[in-house]
Amino acid sequence: MTIVVGFVPTKEGRAALARAVEEARLRQSKLVVINSNRGGRDYDDDTSQTAEAELQRVTDELSGHGLELEVRQLVRGNEPAEDLIAVANGTDADLIVIGLRRRTPVGKLILGSNAQRILLDAPCAVLAVKG
Amino acid sequence: MTIVVGFVPTKEGRAALARAVEEARLRQSKLVVINSNRGGRDYDDDTSQTAEAELQRVTDELSGHGLELEVRQLVRGNEPAEDLIAVANGTDADLIVIGLRRRTPVGKLILGSNAQRILLDAPCAVLAVKG
Repeated sequence: MTIVVGFVPTKEGRAALARAVEEARLRQSKLVVINSNRGGRDYDDDTSQTAEAELQRVTDELSGHGLELEVRQLVRGNEPAEDLIAVANGTDADLIVIGLRRRTPVGKLILGSNAQRILLDAPCAVLAVKG
Repeated sequence: MTIVVGFVPTKEGRAALARAVEEARLRQSKLVVINSNRGGRDYDDDTSQTAEAELQRVTDELSGHGLELEVRQLVRGNEPAEDLIAVANGTDADLIVIGLRRRTPVGKLILGSNAQRILLDAPCAVLAVKG
C-alpha cells in the first residue's frame, strides 16, 4: 500500500504531512512525499530554499521510525495537482492526503483549483485535512 | 473515535459507505450512518422507500460483525451537507466519508455544492471516495 502527500511549507501543508504520517503508520503503508516545484524564475529564491530545508528536517525526523518513506523532488513545471496525480498513478497509490485552508466566517464557498482537480482526478481516495 | 457517513443509494454513496465501514474497522471507531431526507413532497415516494429498504439491508448485514453502528434518520428539511456537518459536530467526529462521482473524460472541472460545503465546513478530516 502507498500513500502520497504533497509537501507545502504552510499550515495546511504541515497538517497534511502530519496526517499522512499517521495514516501510513496505521495502515503500514509506504509514504511518498512530493516536493513539487514549478521551476523557472522562483526556483532559486529564498522561499524555495526554506521549503527544502524544512522538508529535509522533516525527512530526518521521520527516518528511523520504521516508516517506509520516499521523498521525490519534482521540477517539471507542472501544477502541484498534476504532479500529485501522476505520482499517485505511477505508484498505484491507495490514498492521497491534501491540506485545505480553514474558511473564515465570511470566507467564500469555494475550493482552490488544485484541491478540486485532485479530488476529481485522483485515481484513489483523497483525505482532505484542515490546516 | 467516530466516523460519520451519509447514506445515498447511488454508486458513489455505496462506495462511501463501504469505505467508511473499512475505516471504522481499521480504526476501531464507531460508525454513524446518516440517512438525510429533506422531507416534503418527495418523502413518501418510491425512491425514498427503496433507499430506506436498502439502508435496512445494509444495517442488517453490518450488525453482528463487531462494528459499533448507529443509523440516524434525519428529516429536517436540510441539505445533506448541513445534516452531515451538524452530526459530525455533535458526535465530535474524527472523520467524514463522502462519495464523489467519477468525472467523464469531457466532464466539467467542478465539484458538487454539497461536497464543496462538506470539505470546507467539516470540523474534521474528510475522506472523498470515488463511486
